[in-house]
Amino acid sequence: MSSNTSFRLSIQRLESLILEDYEKGRVIDRLELFMQPDSHIIEELIEKLFRVVFPGYFRDYTYRVYNLKNSISNLLEDIAYHLSSQVFIALRGMSDGAGTDERALRERSERITTDFIAMLPEIRSSVDMDLSAAFDGDPAAASREEVIISYPGLYATTVNRLAHALYGLQVPLIPRIMTEYAHGKTGIDIHPGASIGKYFFIDHGTGIVIGETTVIGNNVKIYQGVTIGAISTRGGQRLHGQKRHPTIEDNVTIYAGASILGGDTVIGHDSIIGSNAFITRSIEPGTRVSVSNRELQFRNGHTTEQRHPSNDDDTPEWCYII
Amino acid sequence: MSSNTSFRLSIQRLESLILEDYEKGRVIDRLELFMQPDSHIIEELIEKLFRVVFPGYFRDYTYRVYNLKNSISNLLEDIAYHLSSQVFIALRGMSDGAGTDERALRERSERITTDFIAMLPEIRSSVDMDLSAAFDGDPAAASREEVIISYPGLYATTVNRLAHALYGLQVPLIPRIMTEYAHGKTGIDIHPGASIGKYFFIDHGTGIVIGETTVIGNNVKIYQGVTIGAISTRGGQRLHGQKRHPTIEDNVTIYAGASILGGDTVIGHDSIIGSNAFITRSIEPGTRVSVSNRELQFRNGHTTEQRHPSNDDDTPEWCYII
Amino acid sequence: MSSNTSFRLSIQRLESLILEDYEKGRVIDRLELFMQPDSHIIEELIEKLFRVVFPGYFRDYTYRVYNLKNSISNLLEDIAYHLSSQVFIALRGMSDGAGTDERALRERSERITTDFIAMLPEIRSSVDMDLSAAFDGDPAAASREEVIISYPGLYATTVNRLAHALYGLQVPLIPRIMTEYAHGKTGIDIHPGASIGKYFFIDHGTGIVIGETTVIGNNVKIYQGVTIGAISTRGGQRLHGQKRHPTIEDNVTIYAGASILGGDTVIGHDSIIGSNAFITRSIEPGTRVSVSNRELQFRNGHTTEQRHPSNDDDTPEWCYII
Repeated sequence: MSSNTSFRLSIQRLESLILEDYEKGRVIDRLELFMQPDSHIIEELIEKLFRVVFPGYFRDYTYRVYNLKNSISNLLEDIAYHLSSQVFIALRGMSDGAGTDERALRERSERITTDFIAMLPEIRSSVDMDLSAAFDGDPAAASREEVIISYPGLYATTVNRLAHALYGLQVPLIPRIMTEYAHGKTGIDIHPGASIGKYFFIDHGTGIVIGETTVIGNNVKIYQGVTIGAISTRGGQRLHGQKRHPTIEDNVTIYAGASILGGDTVIGHDSIIGSNAFITRSIEPGTRVSVSNRELQFRNGHTTEQRHPSNDDDTPEWCYII
Repeated sequence: MSSNTSFRLSIQRLESLILEDYEKGRVIDRLELFMQPDSHIIEELIEKLFRVVFPGYFRDYTYRVYNLKNSISNLLEDIAYHLSSQVFIALRGMSDGAGTDERALRERSERITTDFIAMLPEIRSSVDMDLSAAFDGDPAAASREEVIISYPGLYATTVNRLAHALYGLQVPLIPRIMTEYAHGKTGIDIHPGASIGKYFFIDHGTGIVIGETTVIGNNVKIYQGVTIGAISTRGGQRLHGQKRHPTIEDNVTIYAGASILGGDTVIGHDSIIGSNAFITRSIEPGTRVSVSNRELQFRNGHTTEQRHPSNDDDTPEWCYII
Repeated sequence: MSSNTSFRLSIQRLESLILEDYEKGRVIDRLELFMQPDSHIIEELIEKLFRVVFPGYFRDYTYRVYNLKNSISNLLEDIAYHLSSQVFIALRGMSDGAGTDERALRERSERITTDFIAMLPEIRSSVDMDLSAAFDGDPAAASREEVIISYPGLYATTVNRLAHALYGLQVPLIPRIMTEYAHGKTGIDIHPGASIGKYFFIDHGTGIVIGETTVIGNNVKIYQGVTIGAISTRGGQRLHGQKRHPTIEDNVTIYAGASILGGDTVIGHDSIIGSNAFITRSIEPGTRVSVSNRELQFRNGHTTEQRHPSNDDDTPEWCYII
């Protein structure tokens, strides 16, 4: 018997081992196909929605574009078809198959889809303000086009605005798949439940976490590595649905690496949170918070010196930033 | 001569410049094809393995699925064929071509492949416990299905379990390609050498680094931005193979941004490491470690105030978390 | 009227809502196609350039490779064609359509493309040194091949070297699309304007930010989570083009999580910046900087203890590292 034949026989014997393993009744053993939303289709939906939000910026390789009206018609019908199918699958999954009225679910999926598409102009208006916030706020931005095509912060924020709309329409699973896709692409982890005001700017963004019950006001800037999170999740599933994450009021800037934690924590309007600050209680409006005891040790040959950078420095530490 | 023609001529002249540059004998000048494992094929293998680990969750666009048995047969044979080919290439690359017995290498590749596939039920059992850990530990998780389809922590952990099995079977290169693929998708950098116990949970995850010789016990939770690393790698290649990374015992929680460093460092069981703690020595079992001198400065108009958050706060600081 | 028909009618009605929304004259309402560089084509260009930089390492699924000379010819002509087209589009976008001489733009695009391709041997020479720096500096590296195929630091650095060459040739937009693609894949955010010396090594890398006007010398090592950034960008667009980011001299190591900020900040040669240090002013050559007041609190049952890890520890804190 050749090596190749014996290898194939070994593999065939292992198949039954795997098939047996699927008979253990765990969640990972569910074998029905198409019972879950399809993450590939949802990722394609995000790309298609970006072509609606930013027409002309992201090329469409599927349609031949003769004129805009035709193109948008095709694109919206495609989005409507796939989105309502995926919403249907997600809703059916929630109802546990018990007493599901497929027709009612189908109609609900279609209503959600039309409600969502009707929200696109409002979402586009927010995205346009986010674009201004990014361009106005970043000296490295050479043009607004550069921001649209290449900034991960605007990408993640736009996906959040789309996913948050579906989250508000009570769609399970799909909004989270959307924001985790953006998280994978950008390193920016915004839960679809997080509510974000107008003129929002994320710079760089890698490592940002914004939790499910966060509420963010208008004109807020957030830099890389910032966590807006819960104080403790040791309660696990018992905390499900509770407000566990902070409220950030208008005109707040949060510099790189800061952590703001807790459902009762409110950062008052017009505050500035310095880099790496760790905050677990509310802050009055108009406050500048900085880490005050950052001491460094400098060794140079045999000399050792301690220095508080904040004491002998003209630059106010609260404005440190990327 | 038209612009276009002169452009083509310039490019053709540059080709010889590039070809000459390949004659310098550097590692980057190796021109043989198929001498290295193919990262695209390995990435596809990961996706195929996910369809075996979570049947029914990740759609298969390659096969038409008539029934599960056929589908799994096709999938496993496909995995076996590609994995054994890639393992063969990786092993041949290690042997430097000197005295390579191709047939022996081929048989060894097939043995490794069957050994690996035989380990899948055990890996699936670990993944099922990781799934429970994620669902139980995260109040934002709406369902176990959501965790399977969208959580980057479970994704990176599952890839580590698969890659660690191949690492244990002495496969070069491929396990690292697998975990770096997961690192790229999730921002979670777990070396395939790291050994991870049961019921492991990573939340959010961006920025996590877990080094090659790390050993992690059962029921451990790790949040975003945690480093489990080496104290100094100034020794470079001389440290290759030494235990350079910590041991984390059972029932330990490590909150966001903490760093635990050094090959002799042991975090005793049932300990909690607070957010941003920086630890380079062993910790007794049952210890709660927190950063104790986190002082903030608050400026509000003309008032400046220093405050130690940990002194006037009811919330024990060690439980801070996203 | 069936549900399906009414659904399609609703969607068709919404189309006109979307089309109206495009008539508001905002930057997001530009409908012309092909007015912007195509990020998909640019991402493919990066992959093709990697096949030129590392021949034999990244398989080419487009061409059938009969021999190297043919393959490189095809690849370079393909790169030249697509790159010059994209550069043309980017340059035309900058000139605002006013008085554009298409032929002059075309010739300029072709000249830039040939200049860029002529720089590839020099870029390859830098990449070869970066490869040595990564292999020499990382005890986890099993081979140079592993570094080429799987290290995100080398990937991001190579993309920066390619993008920085185009940036130096005054190409708008495209260099930033290239580095943001690498940022998305690796979590390493290096602006194409940043200038990086020889023998550069990034380990792990997730969360690194290196700003536009940064200058980095030779033999520099940077770990995950390091920011080399601006002190304040409150000036927004008024700061465009100014030197806002530090200068790092030769032989400097910057450990995980450190921040170095400000356009006047110079880190003198042969310095070591410890993990999590926060630096906003210049450092003399040969200095080791560490965070000196890192105090931890340990609670164990009823015992509470404060401890300065740097006071009772043999390991010099400045060498902490992943």
